[in-house]
Amino acid sequence: MTRLVLTRHGQSQWNLENRFTGWVDVDLTDRGIAQARRGGELLKEAGFKPGFACASRLKRAIRTLWIALEGVDRVWIPVEKTWLLNERHYGALTGLSKAETVAKHGQKLVNIWRRSYNTPPPALAPDDERHPRFDDRYADLDPTQLPGAESLALTLNRVKRYFNAALAPRLHAGENILVSAHGNSLRALVKMLFNLSEQEIVRIEIPTANPLMIELDGLKPVSVRYLDGARARPVPPIKQAA
Amino acid sequence: MTRLVLTRHGQSQWNLENRFTGWVDVDLTDRGIAQARRGGELLKEAGFKPGFACASRLKRAIRTLWIALEGVDRVWIPVEKTWLLNERHYGALTGLSKAETVAKHGQKLVNIWRRSYNTPPPALAPDDERHPRFDDRYADLDPTQLPGAESLALTLNRVKRYFNAALAPRLHAGENILVSAHGNSLRALVKMLFNLSEQEIVRIEIPTANPLMIELDGLKPVSVRYLDGARARPVPPIKQAA
Repeated sequence: MTRLVLTRHGQSQWNLENRFTGWVDVDLTDRGIAQARRGGELLKEAGFKPGFACASRLKRAIRTLWIALEGVDRVWIPVEKTWLLNERHYGALTGLSKAETVAKHGQKLVNIWRRSYNTPPPALAPDDERHPRFDDRYADLDPTQLPGAESLALTLNRVKRYFNAALAPRLHAGENILVSAHGNSLRALVKMLFNLSEQEIVRIEIPTANPLMIELDGLKPVSVRYLDGARARPVPPIKQAA
Repeated sequence: MTRLVLTRHGQSQWNLENRFTGWVDVDLTDRGIAQARRGGELLKEAGFKPGFACASRLKRAIRTLWIALEGVDRVWIPVEKTWLLNERHYGALTGLSKAETVAKHGQKLVNIWRRSYNTPPPALAPDDERHPRFDDRYADLDPTQLPGAESLALTLNRVKRYFNAALAPRLHAGENILVSAHGNSLRALVKMLFNLSEQEIVRIEIPTANPLMIELDGLKPVSVRYLDGARARPVPPIKQAA
């Protein structure tokens, strides 16, 4: 049985301030670091031995991953850091608090942007200095690929590209994988693995700092659980093949 | 001008106990962690912006690298962890203190093993459970490649393979590189870059936790300095081309 663990980074400075963070590279708070350590302990207790790990290019996910690898004493495994696992890009909402966003755009639009599957928030202009094409982190990429804002659907599309290219072949080969990423990029992985509908996935929220362990037969989930049972939410349902 | 920085990990538990460590995966002490932090600060002060980093597969080097990347705020760059940058393998001496080694083998042989360029210490037998072919860290490699003991010459040969395959092309392309490794694997890089003789290199000792910054024109050093000037030792001489 192959094991895939999805872990969402713990508290960051902007989580604390309730701001739309997206691609802004804010760091973990001390609490976020402690949460990551606890995640590492849970992985160790579960006897999880990843052979490969990946994270977004954002430090809150990378540091969470490093701390987890220290927890399972496998800092030496290969790690890939890819923008394809970044958080959803919140475009012009980036940096605003939830209250500021409502004040600026109204509750109705904010609800649409937060709950809709297909509607992206207003995009950053290509010449906006906050656009990722001016960011050193993505200097190796084709700038026309980089988004100025993303819907959940667009986020899911790029996560799917990464899954198919980098993760699926390793899982098929029986390699255990640890993924450290963000609320929406992990949602995308869950949607694919559990074959959820667009309506189902917008209602799923993966808790922070509570590793989700999925056991797979090939790419088919056969069991799924949160490692911190006391803080677990309902797991995604395992559907029977059609 | 391309910049290559070589950094040797700080104090580990076995450094403290003065044991032959080699490939045993001992961790940094708290002092070693503090030294790594200082290294990161020095890199930041020097305005160093690596685009690629590499380390051995040993946690004392990997953790030193991670702390340095946090120091320069570039945790997102690609990192390769390769056994080719491991410390020299001390074979059957591994784990012995320097005093125990002298008591067991005599000062004369110990001097030869420590100072000779070509003579390896006694090797671990292939069925010795301490042999790297039984170590999960190297499970992806051809076990017949893995040494049971190494001379400085053998260490240098494998470091050279890594340099030629992974570092030289990046340096030629103008990419700044950070290498986190060990006394002998860094010696090997210095021997190659500065074209030192076998006699010269056995006398060179790269200090721990003091990044050595080398500025290069292609693969040719044009300047070299230790970033912690107060603790600097003489730098390798830059020779004129023949």
